[in-house]
Amino acid sequence: MNIDLLKSLIQVNDKKILLVILDGVGGIPDKSKMTELEKANKKNMDELARKNDLGYMVPVDTGITPGSGPGHLAVFGYEPTEYPIGRGILEALGLNIEIDDESVTARCNFATVDSEGKIVDRRAGRISSEENVRLVKLLNESFKDFPKYRVEFYSGKEHRFVLIIRGMKSDAFVNDTDPQVVNEKPLEAKPLKGDSSECAKIINEIFERSLKVLKNEKKANCILFRGISKMPSIETFKDRYGLKAACIATYPMYKGLASLVKMDILKTGESLEDQVNTLKENYNGYDFFFFHVKKTDSYGEDGNFESKVKVIEEFDKILPEILSLGFEVVAITADHSTPSVMKAHSYHYVPLLFINSYPRPVDVKGFSERECLKGSIGKIYSKELITLMLAASSKLKKFGA
Amino acid sequence: MNIDLLKSLIQVNDKKILLVILDGVGGIPDKSKMTELEKANKKNMDELARKNDLGYMVPVDTGITPGSGPGHLAVFGYEPTEYPIGRGILEALGLNIEIDDESVTARCNFATVDSEGKIVDRRAGRISSEENVRLVKLLNESFKDFPKYRVEFYSGKEHRFVLIIRGMKSDAFVNDTDPQVVNEKPLEAKPLKGDSSECAKIINEIFERSLKVLKNEKKANCILFRGISKMPSIETFKDRYGLKAACIATYPMYKGLASLVKMDILKTGESLEDQVNTLKENYNGYDFFFFHVKKTDSYGEDGNFESKVKVIEEFDKILPEILSLGFEVVAITADHSTPSVMKAHSYHYVPLLFINSYPRPVDVKGFSERECLKGSIGKIYSKELITLMLAASSKLKKFGA
Repeated sequence: MNIDLLKSLIQVNDKKILLVILDGVGGIPDKSKMTELEKANKKNMDELARKNDLGYMVPVDTGITPGSGPGHLAVFGYEPTEYPIGRGILEALGLNIEIDDESVTARCNFATVDSEGKIVDRRAGRISSEENVRLVKLLNESFKDFPKYRVEFYSGKEHRFVLIIRGMKSDAFVNDTDPQVVNEKPLEAKPLKGDSSECAKIINEIFERSLKVLKNEKKANCILFRGISKMPSIETFKDRYGLKAACIATYPMYKGLASLVKMDILKTGESLEDQVNTLKENYNGYDFFFFHVKKTDSYGEDGNFESKVKVIEEFDKILPEILSLGFEVVAITADHSTPSVMKAHSYHYVPLLFINSYPRPVDVKGFSERECLKGSIGKIYSKELITLMLAASSKLKKFGA
Repeated sequence: MNIDLLKSLIQVNDKKILLVILDGVGGIPDKSKMTELEKANKKNMDELARKNDLGYMVPVDTGITPGSGPGHLAVFGYEPTEYPIGRGILEALGLNIEIDDESVTARCNFATVDSEGKIVDRRAGRISSEENVRLVKLLNESFKDFPKYRVEFYSGKEHRFVLIIRGMKSDAFVNDTDPQVVNEKPLEAKPLKGDSSECAKIINEIFERSLKVLKNEKKANCILFRGISKMPSIETFKDRYGLKAACIATYPMYKGLASLVKMDILKTGESLEDQVNTLKENYNGYDFFFFHVKKTDSYGEDGNFESKVKVIEEFDKILPEILSLGFEVVAITADHSTPSVMKAHSYHYVPLLFINSYPRPVDVKGFSERECLKGSIGKIYSKELITLMLAASSKLKKFGA
């Protein structure tokens, strides 16, 4: 879709749209010959499937298994390959660290340097994760009085951790300080483009201070910074679609992805009921809600077929309460498939249930990957879904006379 | 489709192609749970559907509701977003005014200017449509003796009307004379690109003469010109596909759209029988016929479900007579859907019945939106249809060895 054309067709009205992402809900049959959706006792969604539209979506491209970043950018209507998300940002989102557009992120390694400051081991002998936790705590304590910016460190596995610099308005296009070889000193951080000199200066200051903090460590006496990045600059949901949008998610990663396109991130609790309450409380304030259910994916990754089924059933029970709010369009789908039998994200198509006022219902048993193949929406790319939601809520003018 | 590649594969033969546009035929179920196509008693098309190919088409893009212009450019095989049709042209086509490639069109407003010629009201106080008719008549009489070009005015609603300058061979890339604000004089028309100075000069002359004609009017004493345009420059059907093509349509708008790609516009009467007679009389003279049935769309726009059903039935009755002529390929489809329950064009897919000698028939009840979902053609973009028609009539060579 030509985005400028789409934008020229947008018309504002007060109809409301709900996008439900049952993260990774798509599956493949296990030994019972059923998928998680097929196994689930979910009479509401099945009934809705018989009266509304079904389809199936390609998240990124045929055969491509998406991470959560591309998967969500696509359902938000953005071409996921056009908006690469920096490695520091991905690492932070992956550790579920809250970030905003004044956050600079970096993937860090603990490393070992000799008395001249030359690198001996780029991974500090792969120290244990427990050791990592101790060192990150030490760093956080030692950076509490860092001037101007809040500097935070978060443990990853072994020698890996994440740096966040908070409150930086300027750019963060800065080289890696990791030279990728031993017997050399860590590189100086330098601005690469944009307004990044402040960021480079602060990275160098953090490096210098960390050397002092870590000087008595035998292995982990130095930090290497890689993938220094802020959130990508991306057209906001409001600017692109004219929609005032809100995110109701329990995990920081999805809040982070929604904040990429400047949705409002609503405070909510841990449970599905909490999320539905947040939706109710904020229903009048927004045109569009992104409602993220995490556990379908988590159980898929664990290979826990039955628990994934239960999350689907739990969502189905609460769905009538959601629908009673009066949305004009509700899409229930996923960012990608996470088949329990694969214990991982997969490249498989994603099922789509599209609840709207102008359906062409077909004869199906219910909502499942295989019934969706018969649906009236057919095969679309995930990034096309938003256009369909806008159309079905009468938010797009006719193109041409 | 890469057009240069397509053109390199074209081979001429004497097989004939018929494209039937049942304008807006696609629908959605009404309270009877059937669409217009499903309701219609149309045994010929149903029988043909069981023995031939079915598919469904995306006119422009997912979720986009096309006007007649983009809808038809697409079924003619042109990417509809690449050929924007000027606002003056659209307005003229929308009023069913016949235009050709020597016609300059403009959307006009009656406006009010003060004694210094400055605009007081850009819409002349939104005069009544009856007043508009009187003024347009006055203008037409006063421009009868305009030198060199025929100048015509056509009433629209309230303050709106259309100007046509006929017989102009040069370009018409000229600015709007409407400054979009009050307290300023109308702008002078100036050539913007191409060979447009003649057009700008004539627009200015029409403006000057109109001031004299309207000088005693209290409100509508000035004209503002907008969207000055000729038909877009677009590769002809003959040049692109090697097809000698003819249009059999009853409404000027569709003749206008066919003339964009230089089909011959055949004279015909008002009824379906007249159109079929024209087809018979001209069968030997052309390779390709664009046969346009308007009333499916008109009744859809009116919300008249039953009358739309009757038009489908009427067409079905006369279809054997059409098929007896011996076409190699007949596509029966639409430019867009116009569901009676929506009383408007819509973004829904368009059903396609593809009658040809090399089908892969599937088990279907007949020709309908929902049965088409099962068809062997699957989902295609409207602009792809022409390639399929060329292929099935053996007019495309193999690509590569």
